[in-house]
Amino acid sequence: MSHKIDREKHKTFAADRADGRYVNTRGFVHNLLRDLYNKKPKLAFDPQFSREEFLEWQAKIRTKTQEIMNPPDVPPQPRPKLLNRAERDGYVLEKWEIYPQPQYVLSILVLVPEGVSATNPAPAVLCFPGSKGTKEILAGEGKPEDNKHYAKNRMAMFYAQSGIVSVAVDNPGFGETADTGYAAGARELLSLYLLKMGWHYWGLATFNATRILNWMKTLDVIRPDRIALSGHSAGVGAMTSLAILNPDIRALVYNDSLCDGLRRAIVTTKPDEDGNRPLPSNMLRNLIPDELKWYGNVDLRAALAPRYVIYTEGGNQEDLDLVKRAYQIMDAEDKLKIYHHDQFRNPGQRHYDYVFIPEGLSPKEYLEYINCDSENHYFHADVAVPWIKKVLTHR
Amino acid sequence: MSHKIDREKHKTFAADRADGRYVNTRGFVHNLLRDLYNKKPKLAFDPQFSREEFLEWQAKIRTKTQEIMNPPDVPPQPRPKLLNRAERDGYVLEKWEIYPQPQYVLSILVLVPEGVSATNPAPAVLCFPGSKGTKEILAGEGKPEDNKHYAKNRMAMFYAQSGIVSVAVDNPGFGETADTGYAAGARELLSLYLLKMGWHYWGLATFNATRILNWMKTLDVIRPDRIALSGHSAGVGAMTSLAILNPDIRALVYNDSLCDGLRRAIVTTKPDEDGNRPLPSNMLRNLIPDELKWYGNVDLRAALAPRYVIYTEGGNQEDLDLVKRAYQIMDAEDKLKIYHHDQFRNPGQRHYDYVFIPEGLSPKEYLEYINCDSENHYFHADVAVPWIKKVLTHR
Repeated sequence: MSHKIDREKHKTFAADRADGRYVNTRGFVHNLLRDLYNKKPKLAFDPQFSREEFLEWQAKIRTKTQEIMNPPDVPPQPRPKLLNRAERDGYVLEKWEIYPQPQYVLSILVLVPEGVSATNPAPAVLCFPGSKGTKEILAGEGKPEDNKHYAKNRMAMFYAQSGIVSVAVDNPGFGETADTGYAAGARELLSLYLLKMGWHYWGLATFNATRILNWMKTLDVIRPDRIALSGHSAGVGAMTSLAILNPDIRALVYNDSLCDGLRRAIVTTKPDEDGNRPLPSNMLRNLIPDELKWYGNVDLRAALAPRYVIYTEGGNQEDLDLVKRAYQIMDAEDKLKIYHHDQFRNPGQRHYDYVFIPEGLSPKEYLEYINCDSENHYFHADVAVPWIKKVLTHR
Repeated sequence: MSHKIDREKHKTFAADRADGRYVNTRGFVHNLLRDLYNKKPKLAFDPQFSREEFLEWQAKIRTKTQEIMNPPDVPPQPRPKLLNRAERDGYVLEKWEIYPQPQYVLSILVLVPEGVSATNPAPAVLCFPGSKGTKEILAGEGKPEDNKHYAKNRMAMFYAQSGIVSVAVDNPGFGETADTGYAAGARELLSLYLLKMGWHYWGLATFNATRILNWMKTLDVIRPDRIALSGHSAGVGAMTSLAILNPDIRALVYNDSLCDGLRRAIVTTKPDEDGNRPLPSNMLRNLIPDELKWYGNVDLRAALAPRYVIYTEGGNQEDLDLVKRAYQIMDAEDKLKIYHHDQFRNPGQRHYDYVFIPEGLSPKEYLEYINCDSENHYFHADVAVPWIKKVLTHR
């Protein structure tokens, strides 16, 4: 059957009736999304907050995040175990095994710079790979063909070479932790079963990271009050939850473009010529049921003020401004650093700043509104590493 | 890349380590499923229940289902509106519009048999189509090419021709309520957004059906204490929730094979030669987060005792026995009627009754264990219609 549709005509949802009611179920659901966007989630950041209101709200965000991430109660587990150690250029590479809960084991890579020891502990960064990244890629232990931007994405290696202890983890169900078969489908499937049992993929990832973080704090080579998180792309989700739940995390590196996820869902509706609307990739992996009712990703970023945060790939200017506003409220504007992609470095190059984002966009059209240079979506060591070094070591 | 895997070797999940821990995240999650199956969901039916314990448990199931289905609070809506009426062979076909909540409208078909009137009201059946069914197919208003078993699936028409008022509905996002494009993807997408907002596809379907049911009870041509539900295939999910929530529903027709969904997930793990394991279809549409922790589909069926229930396509014998046990506890075995597919009518033809179902099956292999004749999966009017007529009219 090849009856093509008029893409322009169907690119948005309208009721087509005088009483404003939708026959198309998707149109009705889309309207629920619009309602939520207009009325705001229950714990949305309010740029009018006083400092006191901000702090109260921030505590509520933390409590709700704890609830949503739903960490299981687990019995005591064995201490992590060192599997092997190897010399590298400027640091020692260690592979450890960690036991987050019964019947489960993770391995992680720990990169300890030369000269760091129990008598000379260093700051540390816990590194989160993107969707197609692994701990081996982060640590520079992979091969160029493992990743589109392999050389650039050796995040943990760059930190170690600058004198910071770095820890590299896998996303659940990828790399060493993968099942047979095509990884995207396999991760969708394991996410499905977690969801049916009342958990979710990023809940599992956040729980694992919590266990790793807690262990890092016990290591004598690490200064526990100088721990940062650094995430690339899909890795920023678990990183954000982890930071919300652990106020002692000192700094965060966001290697991703910031944009409000709810607005993105509302505006990217343009169908292809067969009438199929854009399906977000990894729908089950990225699903945290009920979350949108409470807050969006921009709210969580605002709730990190006044901690040290750097954005290396900018994003939508209006959303970045909301985050900036949180730092103004907390009188900490100097702790937030925002870099855009090179081609959008100057405001004059960002044609879509403060432009109303209409419904009916294709995913590609949408990326223009958020200043995203998807071809150059890789770890920006040039800005991230010196900054993190500075904020973890000064004073 | 074509490195084929050994399907037999990878068909189940095993820890491959002396300490029983999984490196493969999917293996770990699979083990959580096994744990849940072994320990049972919190509100699992217990065949040892006394009558009193059964009734207490049944009340808990109802309360939890109300919570899980999470119906929204909606302001008063306009009364349903008759759109048109047409004479058919033995009944009158009416199309009505109903307004379940703001910005939303559904249309339904109501089939009123000849001779039924306010002074001579009749029993009624609310009919639920399968995944690829529509209200028009149920009412015999479609075309043969609309459905693989069009002639057989005219469920609402058969009921009307036997003197029962029947009401036919669409599944959300299909038939008249569909979006542009391929319906499966579109329904996955609308399910995703409902989930993100704290609801789900079958919650929406159940809510719609509740509104329709409540309205049916007000019609003077219907005997409100003689209302049944009849569902084909995917339609049985919303039908079950509706019956759990409305104890005044008198009878149910299950036109589907019964099998425990959790066990199905556990055993159907055999990958294809590329290593991809079977992905259940419509993963987002069928996802009700957290539900598995509380109960499975067999528990819900047991909770319907002692209401009149007929199964027209049998299922797994062990699961059917659990349902039978509930009727024994309630001293109502005569109210439960179980038919198998023709080719499995005699126990001697059912080679897999009471056979342990191993892990590592393909979906096709699994169907043998539940006596499912998927080629003949259509509405079995021959057994369902006379039975429902009897239980709705006697006394």
